[in-house]
Amino acid sequence: MAASLAARTLARPSFEEAFGEHAFLRAMLDFEATLAAAQADEGLIPRESAVAIASACEAFEVDLEAFVAEGKQSATLAVPLVRLLKSRLPKAVAPHAHFGATSQDVLDTAMALCLKPCLEEADRALEAAVRALADKARRHRATPMLGRTLMQPAIAITAGLKLARWAVALSEDRERLAEAQAAGLALQLGGPVGALEAFGSHDCAVRQRMARALGLADASSWQAHRNAWVDLLDRIGLVVITAGKIARDVALLSQPEVGEMQESPPREGVGRSSAMPHKRNPVGCVHALAAATRMPGLLAIVHAGSLAEHERALGGWQAELATVADIAGALGTSLDFLDTIAAGLVVDADRMAANLRQYGEGPGDTALLAARTDALLAEHASGLS
Amino acid sequence: MAASLAARTLARPSFEEAFGEHAFLRAMLDFEATLAAAQADEGLIPRESAVAIASACEAFEVDLEAFVAEGKQSATLAVPLVRLLKSRLPKAVAPHAHFGATSQDVLDTAMALCLKPCLEEADRALEAAVRALADKARRHRATPMLGRTLMQPAIAITAGLKLARWAVALSEDRERLAEAQAAGLALQLGGPVGALEAFGSHDCAVRQRMARALGLADASSWQAHRNAWVDLLDRIGLVVITAGKIARDVALLSQPEVGEMQESPPREGVGRSSAMPHKRNPVGCVHALAAATRMPGLLAIVHAGSLAEHERALGGWQAELATVADIAGALGTSLDFLDTIAAGLVVDADRMAANLRQYGEGPGDTALLAARTDALLAEHASGLS
Amino acid sequence: MAASLAARTLARPSFEEAFGEHAFLRAMLDFEATLAAAQADEGLIPRESAVAIASACEAFEVDLEAFVAEGKQSATLAVPLVRLLKSRLPKAVAPHAHFGATSQDVLDTAMALCLKPCLEEADRALEAAVRALADKARRHRATPMLGRTLMQPAIAITAGLKLARWAVALSEDRERLAEAQAAGLALQLGGPVGALEAFGSHDCAVRQRMARALGLADASSWQAHRNAWVDLLDRIGLVVITAGKIARDVALLSQPEVGEMQESPPREGVGRSSAMPHKRNPVGCVHALAAATRMPGLLAIVHAGSLAEHERALGGWQAELATVADIAGALGTSLDFLDTIAAGLVVDADRMAANLRQYGEGPGDTALLAARTDALLAEHASGLS
Amino acid sequence: MAASLAARTLARPSFEEAFGEHAFLRAMLDFEATLAAAQADEGLIPRESAVAIASACEAFEVDLEAFVAEGKQSATLAVPLVRLLKSRLPKAVAPHAHFGATSQDVLDTAMALCLKPCLEEADRALEAAVRALADKARRHRATPMLGRTLMQPAIAITAGLKLARWAVALSEDRERLAEAQAAGLALQLGGPVGALEAFGSHDCAVRQRMARALGLADASSWQAHRNAWVDLLDRIGLVVITAGKIARDVALLSQPEVGEMQESPPREGVGRSSAMPHKRNPVGCVHALAAATRMPGLLAIVHAGSLAEHERALGGWQAELATVADIAGALGTSLDFLDTIAAGLVVDADRMAANLRQYGEGPGDTALLAARTDALLAEHASGLS
Repeated sequence: MAASLAARTLARPSFEEAFGEHAFLRAMLDFEATLAAAQADEGLIPRESAVAIASACEAFEVDLEAFVAEGKQSATLAVPLVRLLKSRLPKAVAPHAHFGATSQDVLDTAMALCLKPCLEEADRALEAAVRALADKARRHRATPMLGRTLMQPAIAITAGLKLARWAVALSEDRERLAEAQAAGLALQLGGPVGALEAFGSHDCAVRQRMARALGLADASSWQAHRNAWVDLLDRIGLVVITAGKIARDVALLSQPEVGEMQESPPREGVGRSSAMPHKRNPVGCVHALAAATRMPGLLAIVHAGSLAEHERALGGWQAELATVADIAGALGTSLDFLDTIAAGLVVDADRMAANLRQYGEGPGDTALLAARTDALLAEHASGLS
Repeated sequence: MAASLAARTLARPSFEEAFGEHAFLRAMLDFEATLAAAQADEGLIPRESAVAIASACEAFEVDLEAFVAEGKQSATLAVPLVRLLKSRLPKAVAPHAHFGATSQDVLDTAMALCLKPCLEEADRALEAAVRALADKARRHRATPMLGRTLMQPAIAITAGLKLARWAVALSEDRERLAEAQAAGLALQLGGPVGALEAFGSHDCAVRQRMARALGLADASSWQAHRNAWVDLLDRIGLVVITAGKIARDVALLSQPEVGEMQESPPREGVGRSSAMPHKRNPVGCVHALAAATRMPGLLAIVHAGSLAEHERALGGWQAELATVADIAGALGTSLDFLDTIAAGLVVDADRMAANLRQYGEGPGDTALLAARTDALLAEHASGLS
Repeated sequence: MAASLAARTLARPSFEEAFGEHAFLRAMLDFEATLAAAQADEGLIPRESAVAIASACEAFEVDLEAFVAEGKQSATLAVPLVRLLKSRLPKAVAPHAHFGATSQDVLDTAMALCLKPCLEEADRALEAAVRALADKARRHRATPMLGRTLMQPAIAITAGLKLARWAVALSEDRERLAEAQAAGLALQLGGPVGALEAFGSHDCAVRQRMARALGLADASSWQAHRNAWVDLLDRIGLVVITAGKIARDVALLSQPEVGEMQESPPREGVGRSSAMPHKRNPVGCVHALAAATRMPGLLAIVHAGSLAEHERALGGWQAELATVADIAGALGTSLDFLDTIAAGLVVDADRMAANLRQYGEGPGDTALLAARTDALLAEHASGLS
Repeated sequence: MAASLAARTLARPSFEEAFGEHAFLRAMLDFEATLAAAQADEGLIPRESAVAIASACEAFEVDLEAFVAEGKQSATLAVPLVRLLKSRLPKAVAPHAHFGATSQDVLDTAMALCLKPCLEEADRALEAAVRALADKARRHRATPMLGRTLMQPAIAITAGLKLARWAVALSEDRERLAEAQAAGLALQLGGPVGALEAFGSHDCAVRQRMARALGLADASSWQAHRNAWVDLLDRIGLVVITAGKIARDVALLSQPEVGEMQESPPREGVGRSSAMPHKRNPVGCVHALAAATRMPGLLAIVHAGSLAEHERALGGWQAELATVADIAGALGTSLDFLDTIAAGLVVDADRMAANLRQYGEGPGDTALLAARTDALLAEHASGLS
């Protein structure tokens, strides 16, 4: 299903590109070229075959519509990929392409390769957002504001404490994501039933060479036991949750009746309404909350799809394949929001003070709250600076 | 997020097109042109304005990437649409475009317009599948086979009884879908807060004219109370469930150790494996089960997104917008499977008989089971023929 | 899993009782007694057997812990039920108990019987809430307030228009629920593989007698094609969505910075905080939003569980059985909230006027908005009065 | 909602007890007693008060129905708990109970305390299952069987390879769970808005003392940023997925037409059918698949509920509270299945050989597959022995 235009307004362009048709095709070809090179290194196929395969991969062009149609008939894009690749190779070389591999090897690895730049970008964006929010937290360590529970005024906190919590939560999400990536962003190479029969005693060596070349973790075949990968997707979900929680707070605080924060200073062309030109909508919050609304259902699909039958799933895996780009997409949407608040979050200390006076029970012990803010930031200093 | 290539191998081309970028843009423009025409009919804007708007809509061309980028900045595609449309109209006419409407009117109506041909096609495909399965049920009314519960042999049924149940389930799903469509596939027209303030006493008349022109149901503004629409999406889900249930049965029965059914006779180029060329995979079952694995999560997104804040949601609605094409897509995937089994389901009465002898406790009362099959088909005769 | 105490604070007591252990046991016994009676009426078993079975059902007592443990070993409570029931019958009568039926018949029918009083109560509660909200809508037809979109001020509406929309949405949910109940709240009677082999030509007659006696719809066996039932559960979900949407609105409006509504006048003992005794929390909103947060996931379980293998599911159906009480529970929680606002929703017209002055762009055309309110109520008059 | 009897047939009794009403009440009281003790240690309250509070907690008895009803009125059980506890203390001591804490502190900590023994038991059960499956894998390292993909025969594997993969997957799940537990099974102590205002400079010291006393991790207040906890629940989900995947394999292999495995040797009273006494159902598989069908929806609830408003959520958190026991319950159900196969999984090498001959393309290279099995087990030796 081509993404509806409506869905695209939630997309972060770099992420859209990372999972775009050309990127995915390129990732599948990278799998094939790298496989051949590693097999040549191990003497499983001739070096000249690997060179020819690499050239054919580089020169590979295809009518994408016909390619998709053929992939659909086989329930896997690997079939047209391998057929076309072989058709462009000398007869003697053709059997050396995709040698000993299976369609799931191509697709799972391609999926990981597409996700990789997204995670790298996420790491940088999270780092920047964490640093910006921590800075702002320090600046507002002693800016009193209403704490609110069950959407009613509770006792005072400081804006710094709230911001420090956001920063710490994102910092921890970032660490969790990096940790899961180390295990879960892995090469998939198993052959038809995961045993790399055709590789003889070179199985591990080929895997290690390929993993290194592709910048992925090495792992034994995970085609039917996908939890390292699912764990990685789950932890993407945690980032989206935190961004969504922050967006909910910002949206609540930017109600004009409250008026304590804005996601950004007014910007030309951002947040306009088609019916009410004077209005400014919290567009970043819309995006982050849309992503957070999507994520539980998207992860539920992956979780349900993980009960793979025997050595390769019938239906569940294919549902996952159709969902990974959306999960990455929701992460990208969330990062857009985090970029926005990192760059421009507006904190209105006067409105905070006024609301606290009007609806609270007193200013609280600002010095203590500032100290709490400092302590929280200090405790997580390594991730915040 | 542009759909990954992998996701596209699950797509039914006609459905992909129905929610494609051009179709969606066209649907938004149809909303604007029809609105102007209806408003001219009611004297709210000059006839010449409506004509000019219709022309501008027809001639509308746009750089889709820039269009999406601007839509993203406003969290709605209606902003660039209306801006560009007005920019192409004479100064005096421009205020008559999108008059009194709001962005959600455009997007919800466009979504309904994109879904409409899918539902019409679904109705025809379901009708055909029901008829084909009912025919096959009649043919096999007295073909004994093992009934199976908890994936263990139970007592005998006939193949006809199983097939008749599939046909009846799909027939009932089809009726439910038609029923929900009558209420849920509706024009959205409400203006900024759903009250059509700018329409004076012509609100209902404009709505009725537009609904008729667009082939949608008339309804009072549903922007923040979306249950007629959600009910329609839920009922799409029911079709996908039934197709998934049938696919699971077929996949189980086409295990060679069982061998009682195949989704279709062997076809050149269908179901090939990249690793094992001799193999034939149940591709239709893969598709239907992938769709059924996706649907619970996709509907969960819609359900979670439906708690709209005040007069228009912040985040939830936008999550739904990004999901409707996927829900339609899952329906399309399911129809592909139903087309396949309607055309070619293979029933192997000999293997059924052999398995029943080997694993069952006797042939059962075939005459009674055949009578049960007849009775079930007769009870639902109106939907089955 | 015994419900945690925490879960119980969300429960509506009458619903908790309806799905309580004793009620469920009683429902299973009602199935057995009614089956025997209907079979006796049709001459399938002796009248005296039916009488003896009815007596044994009435006198049935059991150690629930042992009963559950035995049910667990069989993956169905029907096994200990039938074993114990037979053990308490004269030897000649025992074979007439549960004659021709299967465990799923007992459990699905019991589930429907437990849901039945909940739906009856829901119908009454919804009727009352709709009427109360419609009354309040009429009273506030011309009370101007800010319309809000994306949680920002838009143009004016009236409180009456907002309330009328709530009333209409609930009224439509109520109609949809009644409609689905007519088909989906049905007797399950099929025997081992759904064909009622043991009933000869009396299958329909027994079913009709039982359905009438139990107050359920008659239906052909739905053990592996459950969409009429799933549709009913989906429509319970729609009620929970609307209640959640209203609760979100009320919670937003009862922020003291907004102050336009309260779910109820202050009540002794309601909404207290353990830390801040002066605080009053919107407890009804908490409940309704908790229910609405649960529902998408609960329905996703049912949808995923519906892909029944062959003539009875392995795993999916059992997951559904464990979920129905929670779905009913979420409905009960939502009704508690609707009861609360029906009885006591506080509308503060002065704060509405003040906020509109301060944050809006003018009062709007109150007369027109009042007329819109009237029209909306008139259009749905049959459901609202 | 009291768990329906039907739900209870899925429950592992020790887990049911761990989240039972008495255990949960006890956990809340443990929080209060430990809090007082730690505060006395830090000089925040008199030692005698802590002693009196501990006594009152130990002697605490309550009418659970009234307790729940009062908890419902406050949307939190902490209100009646604290009220009743104080009412049983001398007037001078009462203010020292629950001093500086808030309801969420009690409930989140109680939830963690209830989960703790479940995780400890899970660790032991997983260790045993891993060891048993690894043993069996070694025994069957050279037992050829059909590999199957998309539910069709592929090329040969060995039973040992399949079993080794199961063992490794469970072992990795176990490690992930332990890792998440170190961070996520934490004390919650924050006071009304998470800042422990009343604790002055003793905040960390009290937290550390309490965490040590309760056997939980120490953590800064996580009331509105719950991802360490959500991560733990997600990783429970991974165990349930693996168990479900294994159960699906076992269920497929125990179809009599395949006949290659059974979850256990026939056992008296296990797996009986109410309609067909001779039948033996794969009860453990039913349980594990029911748990795996429930988990995606249950986690979706937690994910959706995590977008906490401000300093404490309205609705989302309460939905999570109602769901944790079910998530633990699904883990318990899965462990039951793992216990079953660890104790009794039956591998039929003869049927494997026969099916491979009949449906495969040759026996494959058994020596190589055995070596792969050895390598896989060796690679994960630390977790498997």
